[in-house]
Parts: sequence; C-alpha cells; structure tokens
Amino acid sequence: MITDLQNILATNIRGMKRSAIRELLKFLGQPGLISFSGGFPAPATFPTEELKDIIADVMDKEAAFALQYGTTEGDILLRTLMVERYKKAGLDMSIDNMIITTASQQALDLIAKIFIDRGDTVIMGLPSYLGGISAFNSYGAEMIGIPMDEEGENPEIMEAKIKEAIARGKKPKFIYVIPDFQNPAGMTMSEKRRKEIIAIAHKYDILILEDSPYRELRYEGEDQRTIYELDGTGQVVLLGTFSKIFCPGFRIGWVVGHPDILDKIVVAKQATDLCTPPFTQRIAARYIEKGLLDPKIQQIRVMYKAKQKVMLDSLQEFMPEEFSWIKPQGGLFLMAYGPEGIDTNALLLDCIKEANVAYVAGTSFFCDGKGQNTMRLNFSYESEEQNREGCKRLGSFYKKVLANRN
Amino acid sequence: MITDLQNILATNIRGMKRSAIRELLKFLGQPGLISFSGGFPAPATFPTEELKDIIADVMDKEAAFALQYGTTEGDILLRTLMVERYKKAGLDMSIDNMIITTASQQALDLIAKIFIDRGDTVIMGLPSYLGGISAFNSYGAEMIGIPMDEEGENPEIMEAKIKEAIARGKKPKFIYVIPDFQNPAGMTMSEKRRKEIIAIAHKYDILILEDSPYRELRYEGEDQRTIYELDGTGQVVLLGTFSKIFCPGFRIGWVVGHPDILDKIVVAKQATDLCTPPFTQRIAARYIEKGLLDPKIQQIRVMYKAKQKVMLDSLQEFMPEEFSWIKPQGGLFLMAYGPEGIDTNALLLDCIKEANVAYVAGTSFFCDGKGQNTMRLNFSYESEEQNREGCKRLGSFYKKVLANRN
Repeated sequence: MITDLQNILATNIRGMKRSAIRELLKFLGQPGLISFSGGFPAPATFPTEELKDIIADVMDKEAAFALQYGTTEGDILLRTLMVERYKKAGLDMSIDNMIITTASQQALDLIAKIFIDRGDTVIMGLPSYLGGISAFNSYGAEMIGIPMDEEGENPEIMEAKIKEAIARGKKPKFIYVIPDFQNPAGMTMSEKRRKEIIAIAHKYDILILEDSPYRELRYEGEDQRTIYELDGTGQVVLLGTFSKIFCPGFRIGWVVGHPDILDKIVVAKQATDLCTPPFTQRIAARYIEKGLLDPKIQQIRVMYKAKQKVMLDSLQEFMPEEFSWIKPQGGLFLMAYGPEGIDTNALLLDCIKEANVAYVAGTSFFCDGKGQNTMRLNFSYESEEQNREGCKRLGSFYKKVLANRN
Repeated sequence: MITDLQNILATNIRGMKRSAIRELLKFLGQPGLISFSGGFPAPATFPTEELKDIIADVMDKEAAFALQYGTTEGDILLRTLMVERYKKAGLDMSIDNMIITTASQQALDLIAKIFIDRGDTVIMGLPSYLGGISAFNSYGAEMIGIPMDEEGENPEIMEAKIKEAIARGKKPKFIYVIPDFQNPAGMTMSEKRRKEIIAIAHKYDILILEDSPYRELRYEGEDQRTIYELDGTGQVVLLGTFSKIFCPGFRIGWVVGHPDILDKIVVAKQATDLCTPPFTQRIAARYIEKGLLDPKIQQIRVMYKAKQKVMLDSLQEFMPEEFSWIKPQGGLFLMAYGPEGIDTNALLLDCIKEANVAYVAGTSFFCDGKGQNTMRLNFSYESEEQNREGCKRLGSFYKKVLANRN
C-alpha cells in the first residue's frame, strides 16, 4: 500500500465525510428500531404485482434492447412519455428538454460537475437537502445559506447575499431551491415567492436549480406551477425522480432544461456512467405507458397523508412543549425545532440506543453548520402505528433530556 | 436563458466533447450499417431465458428489498458471491475489499474524483481506453502517455516519464493499465511485465489502477495473474464489470482494493448516485448464486473466438496490404494500423456513408492526440457473416482511399 493515502487525495475529497443518512442505514437492522431517518418510501407503495407482468413482457419482447447499452440521454420511449406527461400538466416542452439520469442524486452531481470550480458559490436555503450539499461540496463549492420563512428562502436576503458575492468576484453559479415541501423544512413557495426568485435570477443572470422530488405527493392545498414553467426562458433546470412515486431501487430520475445545458450534462454523464440502466428505464416506460403511474400516485398520497397526520398528532401528544414544527402540505418529511442549546446530533446515538428510534440530526442540512437544535423526521417509511410509537419514544427521550438539563 | 452559458461552465468541462463512441451510436439505426464501433456484446450472449425465472423469483420473494434504496457499498449478497469467486481463483481478499459501482465507467469516474485535482498527472498507455481518458479528463488530469510494445506499456519509458513528472513536482496519482487484451490495442502483459510495473509503482510509491473488463474472455493462451494479486500489498485498485460477461443493461461493475481506498470511493459515490440499482444487483447475485455465470462465460468465449477468427481472416483477405494488426488473445477488439498520413477520423463519415461500415477512429484513444492512422474494430457485436462483410467493405473503402492518394 502507498505510504500516505490522505496526502494524495483530491482537495475536494479530503474533508468529505460519509453522509449522515447513509451511515444511519446500518442501524436499520437493530431489532425494534423505529426509523424516521432515511427518505425511504413505504415498501407497500412499490407496484410489485403490476411490475411482474410488465417485466415478463419486456424480457419476452425487448430483452435485446433492455439488456444492451443505451444512449446517454436515456430511453427515448421513457423520455417521450415523460414529456407527454409534463405537456398534459401544461408545460411547453419537447424531447430536447428531457434527459434521464441515474436518479436525481446523479443530476445534482452532474450539475455540480459542469458548473462548479473549487471556490465557486451556490445559493441555497438554510436548511437544504443534504444530498445537494454533499454533491456541491464534492466539487469544492462555497455554499451561501439563505434564511427561510414560511414560504422558503427570503428573497431580500437572497438578493443581498448575491450582491455581496458578486462584489467579491464570486457570482453564484446557481440558486438551488426545493420549492415544494422543502426537504427538510417542509415549506412550499407561493407563486409570488417563485416569481420573486425568478426575478432575482433574471436580474443577476443566474441559473435556478429547481429540485422537485416530492412535487406530486401533495396532501392538501393547490398545486403550484413549477419555477421552470413560470420562468419560461430556459433559465431553470428542473430535477425529478421516480424514487418517491414508483421505486428507488430502479435509480431513475430526470432533468428538464434548456437543450444547451442538457448537452453539457450529457457530455459529463458519458464520462460518469455512460448511461442509466436501459433495463429499469424500459420497465418504467412500459409502466407509465400502461397508465399505471397516476393511479399509483393517488394511492401513495392517501397513504402518506394518513401517516403524516398520525405523526403530527403524535408529536403534539408526546413531544416536550419546547419543540415546534410546521405542517408540510406534502412530501415525506417534517422538521422539528428543539430549544436552543439542544444538540440533536450529539444525542442521536443515545436516542437510538435508549429509545430505539432514529432521526436525522438537522445540522447536516445547514450549509452554515448551524441547526444543532433541529431534527428531520420521515413519516413515509414506518407504519401509522410505528409513527405513533416512535413519536412517543422520541418524546419521552427528549423530555428526559430537557428535565436533566434544567 | 442566461446570457453566456459557456462562460459559467467549470474549467474542466469547457473543453469536453461528446465521446466519439457514444456519438457513433446514432448511426447504428442506419439501414444495413455494419458496426465495428461500440464495445457492444452480442445480444445472443444475454442470458434472457435464465433471467426470466430469476427475476420472477426476486419479485415474488424479495421485491421490498430489491425495489428500495440500498447501501452505497452494494448488495451484500452480490459482494459476498464476487469475493467467493475471486477467492476460488486464488485471490486473498474479504468483503472489505469489494464494492459495487454503476458499471466500471463509474469506478473510473470515482477514482478520478477522489484523486485528481486539476493539473495532476496520470500515467497510461498509448493508446488506452477512451472511457478512462474522458473520466480523467473531466477532472482536469494531465495524461502522460507511454508507448506500448507487444506486452503493453514500456517500463523503461514509464519510469523515465514518472521521474520527469516528479522532477517538475507533478508525481503521478496513479498508473492506469488494462493488462488483459488491452482496449484498444489488444496486447496482454506477461507476468514479468506486470511485475516490472509493480516494481515501478513500489519504487515511486504510486497506485496502480488495473482495469480488467475482458479478463475472463480469453480465447487462447494461459490466464495471467492479476496485477492486484501479484502486488499483494493493497497498492493496486482492480476494476471489473458484468457488462461483457452478463449484460451491460444492468450497469453493474465492481472495485477490488484496499479498504482505506474503497472507503473514499464510497464517500464519493454517496454524493454521486447514492447506490447502484439494488434491483439489478440482486438479480445478478441470484444469477451467480445459481452457478450460471461461469458456463455463460464459456459460451461467450466460444462464440467470440469464432467471431474474432472471421474478422482476422477477413482483414487478411480484404484490407490493403499497408494495414497491420495484432491478434489479441481475448477481449472484444483489435486495432488496425494504417499507413502514416491516413486520417481515419476524417474518413469515418465517408466510410459510414459510402461503405456502410463503422469503426472508432483510433485517435480518441491516444492521450497525446496521435494515432490518426489507427482504428479500433469490435468483433463481438455483429455476426460472423457481418464481420466478414464489414471487413470486405472496409477493405474496399480503404483500398480506394489509398489508390486515390497515390
């Protein structure tokens, strides 16, 4: 073995740590553990029965295609169906605005790869999705955090921070937002807020990266138009994924954007994994073609809405009164805010060991390293009963913590 | 749309072009085209029938696992089976030496990501695999090319080039080699040559990246031990893939290496695609568990050996006498060398249009931009008849080219 591995690592990698969420996965095997940690869909939502016939059909009729290499842009049938789906929802787009990626984590990686030189700046919420943070971090991005209100990133502060960055020669490469049921904080941007962000992007000639994995999982309120649609000029790159509305095990996501930007992503993807599995892409395409996706999403909505309600009611019932949270209109998560001085990260292992319940310490989602008093709770994976029991355990644990503190 | 996309691209991406091979794929639809271009396996080698039952079984018994997110290291069953397979072949290793990647292109990307800062140097053959070149290029590597003889990279020149690089403060991050049936040039390193390369790596404390996608596709001669095995100290990272011995459409490869290096790759992979599809991994694992992989490889060997023979015979029969090639002992490719002054890249489109046969212009494989007179020919994808017909067309085309030149 070479004598000093650490010394020959790329600069961007030296400081990288394993993802807090991915590392929590190893505790999932602990007997009786209730996990609010990952963003796992409920296995009951997987279209297992429907897929059996579809897969058998693909293997009978198009195995030579599905088992071979595919184009980097993605399966033309899947892209066509997704474009039709967006068009039906009112978006003006063509096949040239759509490529497939190896789930949306790869889209985050490729966007970072094509835009970020070490030290470049990126704008994002405080908090924001940690998969985005780790992708941008892996290319050495400097992340500028914007405080959030009940609608998302505060536009005045965003503009001020952009001006500041420009003044020091570090104009942000893009503004990263999750406008629908933000992960982890849960808020949804109004159309007004979306337009304010677009106006800032246009004024300063900056791209917007709209990450939208949960958009179709709305449990109340009205759909908002995507920032991509509201912009209409090609200045927004929109990311989507099948992971939460179909299954994560296929690893399929997509990018909607201006063809010139997609072209660069494709060039980078060629060097990264050549293509997303043609096998899972074709199965997904046939599933959508059969009209199965939309009824499935309806089912998932009903199931997750009920699970969310149980979690909200149980938090109310069991958590110490010093904790608060907002009620997201959709998605898979909510974020709980504890009193200042609580360190959810330092307490996590104790919580798993003593209370047998896991969450993600919120600090991983704050690019400024703050948020020690926060935790992200997933309500999609465990059953309603477990959601209630988990909140009960979590509440008892934190009541004890607070009691010992006083 | 923003006003100047080119201007905000990352430095490493600005000069990147679409892969010559990937771009050739669009011609594959041309009626009657014979393609010697991609590294496509013959669809007849895909284990379609055997997979039908296995997939049905996975969907019946373990869909909740296979359709969910998986660990970044890869399916534990698949890793275990692959380790057993290597152990049977005489390698001393454990599960901690094995991770799964989204095919070996991702392994090349991740290795580059964890080691290469812009301007860092890498050692490779002249020629070498273009997927490696494009992965390293996407992180701004400076590639130092080493001339090859009939056994691979010349060790004296390699050592001299390494000394030169060290003298200017640019000690190479790794030595990239494809020791078995090198892509594209076809030669195989003797054990003596492998040991010479290892000695250089030890002397200068440099990692070796051993890319071995074709290793099991040997048509004559004796297996050579891997450089990984011969080293035995953990200074070699070994890449493998199912793309050529099972199917590319599943996108599964693996990395064998020292746990400290794999740990860094896993951290980088978390930010890149979270995990390789658990669905395709579990199907592949069950396929191997049933003992189907090794008989399949035997079948593929018989088929490709015959295809290679047809191509070699047909080149002999039809190519202008100014062309030469070596006979690889395995793999999917051979490289033809034309007379100096021929530009196979400039002639490729004409060759496709006039002769309806495609190859990959060899210059893409030369990190020094040379090799204009070379072409890579794949013999695995087309039938024996097409291999013969394609060589006939290629020969006529180049005979005309040479006649017009004189």
